[in-house]
Amino acid sequence: MNAHDYYTQENHGPYQLHDLGPFELEEGGTLTECQLAYATFGELNEARDNAILVPTWYSGTSKIMEEVYIGPERALDPTRYFILVVNQIGNGLSTSPHNTPFPEGGPAFPRVRIGDDVRAQYRLATERFGLEKLALVVGGSMGAQQTYEWCVRYPDFVARAAPIAGTARNSEHDFLFTRTLMEAITSDPAFAGGHYRESTEVHAGLRRHARLWGVMGLSTEFYQKEVWRAAGFSSVEDFLRRFLEPYFLGMDPNNLLCMAWKWQRGDVSRHSQGDLAAALGRIRARTRVIAIDEDMFFPPRDCRAEQELIPGSDYREIATPTGHLGLFGTDPAYIGQVDAHLRELLDEPV
Amino acid sequence: MNAHDYYTQENHGPYQLHDLGPFELEEGGTLTECQLAYATFGELNEARDNAILVPTWYSGTSKIMEEVYIGPERALDPTRYFILVVNQIGNGLSTSPHNTPFPEGGPAFPRVRIGDDVRAQYRLATERFGLEKLALVVGGSMGAQQTYEWCVRYPDFVARAAPIAGTARNSEHDFLFTRTLMEAITSDPAFAGGHYRESTEVHAGLRRHARLWGVMGLSTEFYQKEVWRAAGFSSVEDFLRRFLEPYFLGMDPNNLLCMAWKWQRGDVSRHSQGDLAAALGRIRARTRVIAIDEDMFFPPRDCRAEQELIPGSDYREIATPTGHLGLFGTDPAYIGQVDAHLRELLDEPV
Repeated sequence: MNAHDYYTQENHGPYQLHDLGPFELEEGGTLTECQLAYATFGELNEARDNAILVPTWYSGTSKIMEEVYIGPERALDPTRYFILVVNQIGNGLSTSPHNTPFPEGGPAFPRVRIGDDVRAQYRLATERFGLEKLALVVGGSMGAQQTYEWCVRYPDFVARAAPIAGTARNSEHDFLFTRTLMEAITSDPAFAGGHYRESTEVHAGLRRHARLWGVMGLSTEFYQKEVWRAAGFSSVEDFLRRFLEPYFLGMDPNNLLCMAWKWQRGDVSRHSQGDLAAALGRIRARTRVIAIDEDMFFPPRDCRAEQELIPGSDYREIATPTGHLGLFGTDPAYIGQVDAHLRELLDEPV
Repeated sequence: MNAHDYYTQENHGPYQLHDLGPFELEEGGTLTECQLAYATFGELNEARDNAILVPTWYSGTSKIMEEVYIGPERALDPTRYFILVVNQIGNGLSTSPHNTPFPEGGPAFPRVRIGDDVRAQYRLATERFGLEKLALVVGGSMGAQQTYEWCVRYPDFVARAAPIAGTARNSEHDFLFTRTLMEAITSDPAFAGGHYRESTEVHAGLRRHARLWGVMGLSTEFYQKEVWRAAGFSSVEDFLRRFLEPYFLGMDPNNLLCMAWKWQRGDVSRHSQGDLAAALGRIRARTRVIAIDEDMFFPPRDCRAEQELIPGSDYREIATPTGHLGLFGTDPAYIGQVDAHLRELLDEPV
């Protein structure tokens, strides 16, 4: 399978495209034709005050956010809210290395930052939907990075915010972990500096990349308690071979590297000369920071330390042995907890 | 530099060699000429009841155990104890892939298990030194695996035991982490199935292997608190380039793989048809299980769960942001804590 067969409407849709035209990037490059892929659920009300924006995490698309987080009876209820899920640049649905033609695509795709995504999302929200305020921005992992960026960059636009299992300023440890992910791919001779012909030629590197997620993405308890059994797998090897490895093996290596580079450099303190407290102090959204107790690379104490710098914020911790990938919602207990935290936040007047 | 220039008396000595002759292995192979490298400190007393045996961890040799753990005024005090540090098979000083001649060495080196090491060490202790009892067996990480194996295999031979930051039965999570270490090396085209000419040809794989240690071997707090500064490094990159990467880059890839395979399969329940509680229930040594609070792959709760299965044992937890590699003793607070725990144990009559 080629990556072009993976990032399809059939697999990830329905989604729409919004064309932003040429889009200048913080690092100096330009996306000649920047398109954001998005999916919407529910209707904007007359007061235009029921919009929720959901950015995506590393490797994720709008589809998984829909499947895991959105539905009637869920906190993100399309019968009450207008929910706008926006695919991050580089994720394969929005403008990405693999869908940008030669010679600007592939390994020549320019460096993109979290701030670029949020500026593009702001244009989508305002130009396409005429929004003036978001009732909530909520996202996990790199989606949390984008959530923080929204709150700091557009403080008056965000009424409520719920960054889940992510940080406002990426940690050094996280940077190193992400580098091991990138090197798992780039060290594959078939990667050829990004000039592979078919993404699946890089299968060995993609598989090693997936296995690193097996170590850091779950938790020691996930394996001790054999939580994979509940998901129908017969062994750890079975879990890796039929879940984690296939999950990543269809993706495009240059897309993943684009997102990984961005992830490494997520940092709202760029808005305040490196002063994180000053940046987070600007936030006016009613912010609830949500951590996952067993997260190995966005650990609760890192999330907590940032929450304490945000005026009027609070903190919740979700208990699940599924660790960071608890975000995938495979643990029903995760779903119950995250929904309770989000529902409570949404019901607060601001 | 070739691995032959790394594993030298100059770098790791003085050490002695004890020849065990042909040595049959649990997995079915035979080491044609099995030699254990060891170093001793202090004198055996007349009662022959002051002997302490110290096995080595993954990648470590007797030298680092001497430097970090042994000295007058330390718990392992050579003025009071006869301390025997034994290098594990495959570590580069004892019989190992790199020092075993073609065609039995290198990638053809047979599979070795923790139990093989402990049987070989038992012969060293009894044949060479005439010991009938060890006052203490103490080791960290794979040294803890060997400590547990000693206690279960030779319950009457071990008076006291202190496994530090390691487990009696390796966890699935640990198995996966070790696999990423192995794959970092074996995926390097220069590894050539283990048939490289010079170990440093595999520098790219060894460097990725070192960087994985940078993610899992320390802790998120190590980086958040910039603990590397106290060790004299100017940045995380400086810490990796001048500490972790050089530490591993002189080593022989086949040696590391031999140890990693062994580490993955450490399991005292092999003595009791897979029943861990039964195996640990056989222990008669006064056992103190010591964990490191921030250890990312031998986490405290895993150590604690095993301790609770050992009759008359107790548990101590060392607080240090240096995580698993706290074993290296770079944090003075680690040294103080581990010495206090070991001194207290040694002073207990058994």
